[in-house]
Amino acid sequence: MIGQSGIAVRNITRADPTSVSALAQFGVATIHEAMGRVGLLAPYLRPIYPGARLAGTAVTIFAHPGDNWMLHVAAEMLRPGDVAVLGTSSDNADGMFGDLLATSFRARGGLGLVIDAACRDVAELREMGFPVWSKRVNAKGTVKATLGSVNTPIICAGALVHPGDVVVADDDGVVVVPKARAAEVAAAAARREAKEAGTRRRLASGELGLDVYGMRDTLSKAGLRYLEDEAALAALDAEAQS
Amino acid sequence: MIGQSGIAVRNITRADPTSVSALAQFGVATIHEAMGRVGLLAPYLRPIYPGARLAGTAVTIFAHPGDNWMLHVAAEMLRPGDVAVLGTSSDNADGMFGDLLATSFRARGGLGLVIDAACRDVAELREMGFPVWSKRVNAKGTVKATLGSVNTPIICAGALVHPGDVVVADDDGVVVVPKARAAEVAAAAARREAKEAGTRRRLASGELGLDVYGMRDTLSKAGLRYLEDEAALAALDAEAQS
Amino acid sequence: MIGQSGIAVRNITRADPTSVSALAQFGVATIHEAMGRVGLLAPYLRPIYPGARLAGTAVTIFAHPGDNWMLHVAAEMLRPGDVAVLGTSSDNADGMFGDLLATSFRARGGLGLVIDAACRDVAELREMGFPVWSKRVNAKGTVKATLGSVNTPIICAGALVHPGDVVVADDDGVVVVPKARAAEVAAAAARREAKEAGTRRRLASGELGLDVYGMRDTLSKAGLRYLEDEAALAALDAEAQS
Amino acid sequence: MIGQSGIAVRNITRADPTSVSALAQFGVATIHEAMGRVGLLAPYLRPIYPGARLAGTAVTIFAHPGDNWMLHVAAEMLRPGDVAVLGTSSDNADGMFGDLLATSFRARGGLGLVIDAACRDVAELREMGFPVWSKRVNAKGTVKATLGSVNTPIICAGALVHPGDVVVADDDGVVVVPKARAAEVAAAAARREAKEAGTRRRLASGELGLDVYGMRDTLSKAGLRYLEDEAALAALDAEAQS
Amino acid sequence: MIGQSGIAVRNITRADPTSVSALAQFGVATIHEAMGRVGLLAPYLRPIYPGARLAGTAVTIFAHPGDNWMLHVAAEMLRPGDVAVLGTSSDNADGMFGDLLATSFRARGGLGLVIDAACRDVAELREMGFPVWSKRVNAKGTVKATLGSVNTPIICAGALVHPGDVVVADDDGVVVVPKARAAEVAAAAARREAKEAGTRRRLASGELGLDVYGMRDTLSKAGLRYLEDEAALAALDAEAQS
Amino acid sequence: MIGQSGIAVRNITRADPTSVSALAQFGVATIHEAMGRVGLLAPYLRPIYPGARLAGTAVTIFAHPGDNWMLHVAAEMLRPGDVAVLGTSSDNADGMFGDLLATSFRARGGLGLVIDAACRDVAELREMGFPVWSKRVNAKGTVKATLGSVNTPIICAGALVHPGDVVVADDDGVVVVPKARAAEVAAAAARREAKEAGTRRRLASGELGLDVYGMRDTLSKAGLRYLEDEAALAALDAEAQS
Repeated sequence: MIGQSGIAVRNITRADPTSVSALAQFGVATIHEAMGRVGLLAPYLRPIYPGARLAGTAVTIFAHPGDNWMLHVAAEMLRPGDVAVLGTSSDNADGMFGDLLATSFRARGGLGLVIDAACRDVAELREMGFPVWSKRVNAKGTVKATLGSVNTPIICAGALVHPGDVVVADDDGVVVVPKARAAEVAAAAARREAKEAGTRRRLASGELGLDVYGMRDTLSKAGLRYLEDEAALAALDAEAQS
Repeated sequence: MIGQSGIAVRNITRADPTSVSALAQFGVATIHEAMGRVGLLAPYLRPIYPGARLAGTAVTIFAHPGDNWMLHVAAEMLRPGDVAVLGTSSDNADGMFGDLLATSFRARGGLGLVIDAACRDVAELREMGFPVWSKRVNAKGTVKATLGSVNTPIICAGALVHPGDVVVADDDGVVVVPKARAAEVAAAAARREAKEAGTRRRLASGELGLDVYGMRDTLSKAGLRYLEDEAALAALDAEAQS
Repeated sequence: MIGQSGIAVRNITRADPTSVSALAQFGVATIHEAMGRVGLLAPYLRPIYPGARLAGTAVTIFAHPGDNWMLHVAAEMLRPGDVAVLGTSSDNADGMFGDLLATSFRARGGLGLVIDAACRDVAELREMGFPVWSKRVNAKGTVKATLGSVNTPIICAGALVHPGDVVVADDDGVVVVPKARAAEVAAAAARREAKEAGTRRRLASGELGLDVYGMRDTLSKAGLRYLEDEAALAALDAEAQS
Repeated sequence: MIGQSGIAVRNITRADPTSVSALAQFGVATIHEAMGRVGLLAPYLRPIYPGARLAGTAVTIFAHPGDNWMLHVAAEMLRPGDVAVLGTSSDNADGMFGDLLATSFRARGGLGLVIDAACRDVAELREMGFPVWSKRVNAKGTVKATLGSVNTPIICAGALVHPGDVVVADDDGVVVVPKARAAEVAAAAARREAKEAGTRRRLASGELGLDVYGMRDTLSKAGLRYLEDEAALAALDAEAQS
Repeated sequence: MIGQSGIAVRNITRADPTSVSALAQFGVATIHEAMGRVGLLAPYLRPIYPGARLAGTAVTIFAHPGDNWMLHVAAEMLRPGDVAVLGTSSDNADGMFGDLLATSFRARGGLGLVIDAACRDVAELREMGFPVWSKRVNAKGTVKATLGSVNTPIICAGALVHPGDVVVADDDGVVVVPKARAAEVAAAAARREAKEAGTRRRLASGELGLDVYGMRDTLSKAGLRYLEDEAALAALDAEAQS
Repeated sequence: MIGQSGIAVRNITRADPTSVSALAQFGVATIHEAMGRVGLLAPYLRPIYPGARLAGTAVTIFAHPGDNWMLHVAAEMLRPGDVAVLGTSSDNADGMFGDLLATSFRARGGLGLVIDAACRDVAELREMGFPVWSKRVNAKGTVKATLGSVNTPIICAGALVHPGDVVVADDDGVVVVPKARAAEVAAAAARREAKEAGTRRRLASGELGLDVYGMRDTLSKAGLRYLEDEAALAALDAEAQS
């Protein structure tokens, strides 16, 4: 059940590594489009430094406001290639994660963190090259008093994440791909990117999207009215008021 | 009329290029002050990378939430030196603009984008050096289903923008100068900057703004009371309560 | 009294320089923890460029929305090693501070600014290396019409700051250490950092926080239940519903 | 020019009273739709008590943050049937308006206030039945130090308002109708309301909007796929992943 | 899959009516506690009038920003005792729902609406007694151009909702109970309420929660230190700094 | 020290009852003005029902996010005429307080609560007539795991509150009067109200604030320019651009 506390699942089924590698080639926007425009986490999650980027399998964490205990429980579950993803039981922006936990996560093979709360020690994390997407930077410390869960399904920043799902994150945000769909989405992303390469060339040469995408007709059917100049617009306005 | 849909004006009167070049020499804060402290767009519009900077003439776009169709219509209207400026019919933060549109805009001579919504592909845009001021970064894609307008007057981030107005944007935000006032404002900005250079030298030498700006008298008339130390302040507090 | 207007105190007792130097060695998160998890200003205060960092003694400023007059009064009070800290009488995000004031502050020995309002000329400030923590960047200019105070106790971003207190700021935010506690906190921070160095080494070697901090027992007492795999979790869910 | 300070215009052209009376019959949502879905002020403007409602001609006020001086200048310009509409030079939520100003406005024939800032004395205003739409309730007092303007065009909550325009406000928000369009919009609103009455009867009888509005065909063309039950949905999902 | 578009499921399994009736006896806070402190939708969803209250089975709607087409599709799916619950593909606060749709929903037996967007015609809805929980009131109209879905799983205000789940809403917010857990949760809520009745009597008689809940011991073990008066506190502070 | 945890002070010095009774006669806005425009808590604190109103002496509570343990400790400290005032160690909007605690507080003589977090059971509290000012309504429950403090100085919603200070709250918000200033402020509020009564009569008779407050001269000196009509304004604009 979403949001239950007191459970830690040791072994999870992860998306297959080939699909993760394949998805790692694409940006978040491309993957989101390839999935049919779904899977994004809320855009208030931002990387703590520009250029941050990762693709891995989710170890999920459910935590309570102002309490980072479960991050320590999660460290034990991390396998190389994993990304920790933390959702909370209510809105919170305390600094649950810093360079010590990052050191531990990295030692376990963890690639980074997506946290629907805040992060601190960002100068050190930037130097370590340990990427974090958080809703805020905040030095505020947390307690270790209340149980959440590890590796149960969670809601993180408005998206449902299951343990083992693929998480891709870059400067544009974070997207989650359900593990069962990873191969399919990677293939769709590849097709989309191939197609966009051609489009990009045409647009770069000065061709218009109106023509590349064949929009002139639909625009016209929708009733778009081209006016020659601002005088024509003024005339139209005057007419409407008479 | 502000906010009407279904119109695209092909030819607009742009601010004269000399004034645009003149305004390009100044920062947003200086121009805003030179205009009499008006013309700023709301400060939630931020550049997608530090150091972004542009000055150009506005091609205006009116769009609906989650719909970027009009950006394609606008591409055709862009002339070298133009800046696309997009306002929406209601609050929206979807990723209406990315690297493909930027490629198209650049091929048409467009200098950049000011958008009261979100932008994506920011890593690519940073690499291209294509500057965008937006309210958010968001990978969320949009549809092409509902007509807005191009080159009609719009409200963007709380400011009125007419097609052809001068738009200047930098790390401090975005300012719009009505085309009829461009020359006048450029001259006022130059005067202000010249005056500030002298002030800067005096302040750098340790002279106080109190003296440079002659504020001591007005402060005194307004009733500012200098106390020698914190003991004097404590005495004053005690007196007030007795 | 907090928030009184019309007072400027010339001479204040500052934290002793040795303690300030000692505190300057530590990050904001460490100092906040060393104080017993207090002293942070609200995390909406952000540095205007990454890597900004300072430690100094507070010259406090109380100002009204849209009015930066008191910043000029404060310039006279700055001594080498001071940090200006500005609180307002109500929520405001106008650009009260820019490169001219920074030039003046620097000439007086000021190290930087913490402002519960906005700042402008950020490109110039970045180039000068003059650090500012503000709630927003905003080119919006301000008036000089209404008296506030200088060197009276203020609330800045939700924290109480007395003149002469130590202010430390970095990428993680801003912390204030009451002057009477400066030495004690510096010592506690040093102890904490020494202890963390050992912890970091252990974590880097792959040891788990669960063991380093001895958490297994308390987790177990709190009722954490380890499940072998997702099938066990599904079984548990099914059981709950029967 | 939008946002200029230091001007007070004594006599303005107001929308004709017949059109104002006609518009007063309709709700904000209806008028907004009748105008072609434009003219709304941002929805953060809320009435200070439920059931508040007004329709009148705008006396516009441009004010600076934390300064309510211009409200006193505006009082003199109010004629019976007017509504004061206040925009600010930057984001502000101080309590610029209370029961004394309401007493004065009412004595001049003013019907109410729309303010892109805050209001206080709301218990008294509720008792007086003096309606105000504001962005917040706030007891915070303001100064009278800096000139704004009265009866110049303003931006209020993201909408352009000219002196004399019609302002209609109710529980749904605030809409402004340009005076030149008042008659036309009132007529369109009447047509819309008449049409909606018929629709309402049909819907109340259990007929579906799908049929009343004839949507089945367009939905089908757009590709809507009806599934009999959740099992069919599960089958579809499984198919997508294979 | 969460967030897929273009699907409408006609027949769904609803929570059994007995459990819905049982849950209808309890407040949102009680149910949330009885579930183990889960199931709440984000608290930004507020009733459009005080005292609004409902309990029913969810017909889910997935819609795109600024587009209310799917609400019409959903009307056909409503059965007596249903509650429409709408999630969006991205943050939106347009007025997707008003009195005409409410008339239609009511005619179909719909009890109310929970919408992660805005609602309009709130005066009429209040008069009809048709309850809506929304993130905002907004007169802004929407288009009917892009397909979403009806009766697929959705995320609404940060919570996962399946078609047929029980939705209870009151002045405190909105909670969703998975249909498979409805009976179990109703029973737990009844137990909780019975227990609270006793507690309430004891507290009303002046007994302290410290004793009723037996907290004195745990507080003491956690280290709570009782001081006789403020002088003792001052002494403690002085000691800390020496 | 602000924000220390683990302390509960049993006996505090309260403002004298006569001053509290005197202050109870005035509204929050009046008291805030009488204090010299200080003392307000941030306006995001809102009453949970309209018309709520109280004046009493503060029992202060410092709590951690998502943890309401200290409210139970505070119950024991409440004396008739007290108001509980809760600040938190970081931003939090969980439902820390509901009808059981209200029952307990009332039994102890507590008049109400001011909480920089959320409250639940608002329908019951409204029925009980137990007033609460909170930042949000939220059914989200909290834990009892981490010590805060009772009756130490706190920051609540940006204001410094000492135990025993006078708290007055109404529809306009919340103001705190330091106990040492209570008598002085009550007297000043009485003078202000007496003066306002006369002003109100004059304004009600149609006299203008411009004359009542003698503003014409200062406005003129500040440079306010009266124009006869909009034509004069247009002429002025044209001149500026030439």
